[in-house]
Amino acid sequence: MLFKNIGIIDENFDFKPNMYVGVKDGRISCICDAQPEGDFGEVYDGTGKVLMPGLVNAHTHSPMTLLRGYAENLPLDRWLNEKVFPFEDRLDCDRAYWGTLLSIAEMLESGTTSFSDMYFFSEGIMRAAKDAHAKINYSRSISSFTEDVSFFDDERVKEALEIAEKYNGTEDGRIKIDMALHSEYTNTYPMIEQFGKYIGEHDFISHIHVSETESEHENCKKKYGKTPTELFESVGILDKPCLFAHCVWVDENDMDIFARKGVSVVSCPGSNLKLGSGVCNINRLLEKGVNVAVGTDSASSNNALDMFREMYLISVLPKGINNRADIVSPKEVLKMATVNGARAQGRGDCGLLKEGFRADLIVLDMNRANMYPDYNAVNNIVYSADKSNVVLTMVDGDVLYRDGRFKYIDVEKVGRECNRIVREVTKELGL
Amino acid sequence: MLFKNIGIIDENFDFKPNMYVGVKDGRISCICDAQPEGDFGEVYDGTGKVLMPGLVNAHTHSPMTLLRGYAENLPLDRWLNEKVFPFEDRLDCDRAYWGTLLSIAEMLESGTTSFSDMYFFSEGIMRAAKDAHAKINYSRSISSFTEDVSFFDDERVKEALEIAEKYNGTEDGRIKIDMALHSEYTNTYPMIEQFGKYIGEHDFISHIHVSETESEHENCKKKYGKTPTELFESVGILDKPCLFAHCVWVDENDMDIFARKGVSVVSCPGSNLKLGSGVCNINRLLEKGVNVAVGTDSASSNNALDMFREMYLISVLPKGINNRADIVSPKEVLKMATVNGARAQGRGDCGLLKEGFRADLIVLDMNRANMYPDYNAVNNIVYSADKSNVVLTMVDGDVLYRDGRFKYIDVEKVGRECNRIVREVTKELGL
Repeated sequence: MLFKNIGIIDENFDFKPNMYVGVKDGRISCICDAQPEGDFGEVYDGTGKVLMPGLVNAHTHSPMTLLRGYAENLPLDRWLNEKVFPFEDRLDCDRAYWGTLLSIAEMLESGTTSFSDMYFFSEGIMRAAKDAHAKINYSRSISSFTEDVSFFDDERVKEALEIAEKYNGTEDGRIKIDMALHSEYTNTYPMIEQFGKYIGEHDFISHIHVSETESEHENCKKKYGKTPTELFESVGILDKPCLFAHCVWVDENDMDIFARKGVSVVSCPGSNLKLGSGVCNINRLLEKGVNVAVGTDSASSNNALDMFREMYLISVLPKGINNRADIVSPKEVLKMATVNGARAQGRGDCGLLKEGFRADLIVLDMNRANMYPDYNAVNNIVYSADKSNVVLTMVDGDVLYRDGRFKYIDVEKVGRECNRIVREVTKELGL
Repeated sequence: MLFKNIGIIDENFDFKPNMYVGVKDGRISCICDAQPEGDFGEVYDGTGKVLMPGLVNAHTHSPMTLLRGYAENLPLDRWLNEKVFPFEDRLDCDRAYWGTLLSIAEMLESGTTSFSDMYFFSEGIMRAAKDAHAKINYSRSISSFTEDVSFFDDERVKEALEIAEKYNGTEDGRIKIDMALHSEYTNTYPMIEQFGKYIGEHDFISHIHVSETESEHENCKKKYGKTPTELFESVGILDKPCLFAHCVWVDENDMDIFARKGVSVVSCPGSNLKLGSGVCNINRLLEKGVNVAVGTDSASSNNALDMFREMYLISVLPKGINNRADIVSPKEVLKMATVNGARAQGRGDCGLLKEGFRADLIVLDMNRANMYPDYNAVNNIVYSADKSNVVLTMVDGDVLYRDGRFKYIDVEKVGRECNRIVREVTKELGL
């Protein structure tokens, strides 16, 4: 495909008008200011449009979209214990499959080209990712509630390792497998320690919920005399790549550790607000040079999987909370939502509009009321755009979404299946 | 028009499936659960859709959409003095006309059926509102910088009164005129006092910026020994209907005054965050029984005019800031964005899906990825919907927007004109 006469967000996150971008064999083959020679197949007229790197949703739980709108305005403990856990108890791989497909559809139409997913019912999620040709870093969530843990005998661990063996690097690398320790508060020390030992001997990204709520953070300090970050560092987890989700309550020392160890922090501003967890100190993390990425968390706590909404939140929240309009620039926001996310996923050839990089690209229609006047495209994309501006989403050169239609997903069918599942589950729960 | 087999958000903000809603002579003529008799003209098949009251954007400055993306990441004083004021100096009624039309288009496509606008270049705004058949409460902003004020000789006051004389109640009541005192900090005491006297003798809503920033609020206390709210109360302004925008820094006593005097507070969460002004204490205002409405403020500080984004912000911000997931219910959010706004505008027959009320209605498409599963429509609309779900916007029974098309606005032409104006202005400013 050749994008012709199109505005682009270049690798420095500057806007350039009237460019040509060629895609071959799933990668960006050329970026130039005049028509390149050669046959690219379809020529896409980019007049009035902008091409930019696809968004990376660096923390979500796809099947939980089945719980959208099901459990609202409850504090985290009641939300989990009274609503989420009983519902999840009724799920299986088939139900998770449909929920994941729905999530992928919503992410594609809102410009997300890759996502990091932590959950269970792994085979259902893998099947959905393959059917939809989605780019995913998946990790089977590991939790433990007893002290007598034998890592390799644990059912959750077994599933995590089997999935890694079976799927890591498959689908031309679109599927990557990470290792997920659910969190400090949902694991016993022996599991945390053995997880650290395993990670030290293998090459996986550790995907962990860290300091999401004040009580989680403070209870850990009481229990271990360490913050969750310090605890995970003490067992060696941070010696390998880490993706830490939330980090709302981390302290200065935790942030210094992130910077020193190269930990990626994934902020989920919408979910943190809605669950009453607080606001991540993005500005301080950026000042310290931490790789900050952005995620939606699940549609059960967000309640959408719309990275444009998260971009807006992450751009304006730090300003409002710190009473400073001059922090967190639009360029920094674009980086957080794209290349920083790709880095957090260990995908060094994704997240930038750069020759040789994977063609994970989205097209925004700028001929819409919310994009005029065209004074500054970067400002408009971060502060004014929304998912309705997304008209094309391409992953590895494959156009998965275009003008309201999905290449591999029948969204109305998927929606009906999800409606059916929720009716069945709520009936099974006697609701 | 007859909406057939459609889900509705009823006057109690409950969801009802499979309803029939008839519109005649600009009003809702019937709401029933079976097909009514009579000829309604077009029958609209509402399968998979929800009909709800249109959103009321209760505080904006329409022509400022011309400044979208023009002045970013600056503190309020530099934003105003270095960027906004010099730009506004180059505007005129013709330029304001195009900016207003653009704003109206953006509001219609995102489900806003009525808005409260405070600005100048009044004739340009009135012309745009008439051409677009928009519902608007307009007020000519009054400010003053000298002590020797003679109210009726002031040019701004003259324009405000002339516009009121000429337009109030015109266009079948779609155009209403309010009186705008810009703020305490942009007016001298003699003007504030004389404004109060005028308001006491006439029937207008006072539209005022109140306690938007901490410095504004604190400086007023130093100068007068009163908060802005107490000051305005002392000159009698609160004895008539008031629409106070922002109210980020109001104290407990101010809030009690609002409740006692029936002042409507319009929160603009997006603008307040982006300008680093802070977060309005919505929850406390609601607890005290204050009529809280929602506004976008201008696209120069927001940077969109998307009430779905503001609804989401106003639903999740109080939870995140107060670390309480159980406050501000989805129903309260819907009320704030609809009927409370209509009340703030003095439009007692707008903002509810109720027989006899004005047919200011929007249709949401629920057959979209972000609206499945259909467990709870109210939750989905507040927490998951966005403007891409809006497929029809009706004002006084007239379909002004439908499936991407505007009845009275050529949005690409308006966009081109706005681009041209910005190029001319920036050239005139030597940029």
